[in-house]
Amino acid sequence: MHYLDNSATTPLCEEAKAALSRATGAFGNPSSLHGMGAQALAALNDARAVVAGALGCSPRELIFTSGGSEANNTALFGAARAMARRGRHIVTSAVEHPSVLRTLEALEKEGFSITRVAPDEQGHVSADAVIAALRPDTVLVSLMAVNNETGAILPTAAVKPALREIGSPALVHVDGVQAFGKLSLRPETAGADLISVSGHKIHAPKGVGALYVSKSVRILPLIYGGGQEGGLRSGTESTLLIAAFAAAVRALPERRAALARAQALRDDAAARLRAIPGVVFNSPDDALPYLFNFSVEGLRSETLLHFLESRDVYVSSGSACAKGHASHVLAAQGLPRERIDSALRVSFSRFSTPEDVDALVAAVAEGAATLKRKK
Amino acid sequence: MHYLDNSATTPLCEEAKAALSRATGAFGNPSSLHGMGAQALAALNDARAVVAGALGCSPRELIFTSGGSEANNTALFGAARAMARRGRHIVTSAVEHPSVLRTLEALEKEGFSITRVAPDEQGHVSADAVIAALRPDTVLVSLMAVNNETGAILPTAAVKPALREIGSPALVHVDGVQAFGKLSLRPETAGADLISVSGHKIHAPKGVGALYVSKSVRILPLIYGGGQEGGLRSGTESTLLIAAFAAAVRALPERRAALARAQALRDDAAARLRAIPGVVFNSPDDALPYLFNFSVEGLRSETLLHFLESRDVYVSSGSACAKGHASHVLAAQGLPRERIDSALRVSFSRFSTPEDVDALVAAVAEGAATLKRKK
Repeated sequence: MHYLDNSATTPLCEEAKAALSRATGAFGNPSSLHGMGAQALAALNDARAVVAGALGCSPRELIFTSGGSEANNTALFGAARAMARRGRHIVTSAVEHPSVLRTLEALEKEGFSITRVAPDEQGHVSADAVIAALRPDTVLVSLMAVNNETGAILPTAAVKPALREIGSPALVHVDGVQAFGKLSLRPETAGADLISVSGHKIHAPKGVGALYVSKSVRILPLIYGGGQEGGLRSGTESTLLIAAFAAAVRALPERRAALARAQALRDDAAARLRAIPGVVFNSPDDALPYLFNFSVEGLRSETLLHFLESRDVYVSSGSACAKGHASHVLAAQGLPRERIDSALRVSFSRFSTPEDVDALVAAVAEGAATLKRKK
Repeated sequence: MHYLDNSATTPLCEEAKAALSRATGAFGNPSSLHGMGAQALAALNDARAVVAGALGCSPRELIFTSGGSEANNTALFGAARAMARRGRHIVTSAVEHPSVLRTLEALEKEGFSITRVAPDEQGHVSADAVIAALRPDTVLVSLMAVNNETGAILPTAAVKPALREIGSPALVHVDGVQAFGKLSLRPETAGADLISVSGHKIHAPKGVGALYVSKSVRILPLIYGGGQEGGLRSGTESTLLIAAFAAAVRALPERRAALARAQALRDDAAARLRAIPGVVFNSPDDALPYLFNFSVEGLRSETLLHFLESRDVYVSSGSACAKGHASHVLAAQGLPRERIDSALRVSFSRFSTPEDVDALVAAVAEGAATLKRKK
């Protein structure tokens, strides 16, 4: 099997599986006052230190969530509502994940106005365009570190210096779901007050993520209750998944070496795919090499996706979250509809191999040569 | 070990452990279009049918959440905000879980007014008092089926008929976290439009729960994004935990027989504890027998809790979520402060035994006889 849909979700790594099965025995509630509670709390704090360490923040600045979507919702609703008295303008890009775009639409109904900066045709969102969108009443800027459909790297680090220059109090949120474990997300380098990450993109289980909240920032909770996670995220902590998440984080490979491997896979795949008649790339050349998006002219995404599946090659059309809807990311790049309707995403993990690329290229070549083109 | 803190959290049952380890192999994203996604989606829908079956609703009326707190927050914020144009009054009890009380306080800041019906000294919330609190602008009534500190059963079923009688459009939310698997929560019997349940109180892992949303009701989502769970709860579904949750639900014992066993344990424990000088019960006699609350006069909760722990008996002071704060539930019953400061909660699961009760009674008797009373 050639699983090349790692931006949708990843298989558990052995370390996460082992942590899951170890954690299955200890079942205390971290809020219980007796020894079993204390043991669960200690395990929770160990996990917090591991994930915070990988992000480069203090454990006190990290809360666990049920995943990237909840982290994004908490960051955006929490920051916007806390800042509402100071202003009601939010800057974002047109290529964000639905958990950012839909949340901002909900904030629009609460009276916020949103500026969505468009990418260029290659998929680049320019720092200048983001900075030009800032207004005196801007209270929040939300950008993804890496786009989940094309791999485009967004200019997150340029925002904070620009805000400082104009004396703006606006908070910066970085959706780090696709970047986590692959690029540095250190808060000071990224210039971020809030960073969302997810477990299941890095070989941890689905259902767990985290949100970095700078100690200098106050946001409102999304989920109220028992006051867990420093009062920012109530609900008994998902001890099993958090333990597995920490184990997957601890097992992350050295970033540069892994990036170089992904770059080699991508460069090889890109060169060989581009040699196939009708193949055109929808990702910028300087994208994060773990994922890329391409179209085969005249072949609908689903047709080729299912053909590839018949050759044991698993990819996606757009993102899993869009579930077959036309990509808003490629539309924002201004690509023609036929090209969007033909788009496929290939996404690697650190376990991807040259054999996976061979299988992909062979299957695309066969599909492009044999499948019936749409008139 | 005598674990009698099952209202805080429960150990995984063997069925849930087996489901977890089975589910560890299949890792597709239910939203992916290829076969692995379809397989994950089928497993998700199987699990949904199981949990819906236990609740007595249609699978289309059940969404998975990250637990009881998120379910309560989704129900309350979602219903109140959707109903805001029709009225802004909410009725609840003073003894609800913090994930209801804190959420309603947040809604108060959004302009809702809240009536909190107090219990009597025995812990009963009367149906008449709830009905008397209804107003023409009431849009939501939220009651727990069973109180998590005393086991008191609340008059949830009386609300809907009363609303119908006065032609009120108000929605009824039942926090079924402590009742699920122990009492019937069928929506039509409970007269509920929304019912919250949690996995980790019934031997499933922490981090998963569900919300019943009647098909005749429209609420707003709490978490926006990819549109999973019928658009009501975005975020990649926690496939592992959901599989384990369904397995734990499938393994639930026949309700009446289990209830009779719990009743026998509780009656035995109550009779023997009441024979110990200084012991007084804070739970009503007709409470759900799975849990009860008592005080030993002059002994602080934590002192006795840690003494019991030294005898391998695990109980809690109030609820785990209150983390050592004085109980708002017992305070609402009008109990004196010293009695509240001495309160302990004992909570059974279907795995509790007469030996657990023996150990509890012996340890409480020893503690009451030997520990130094507070002056």
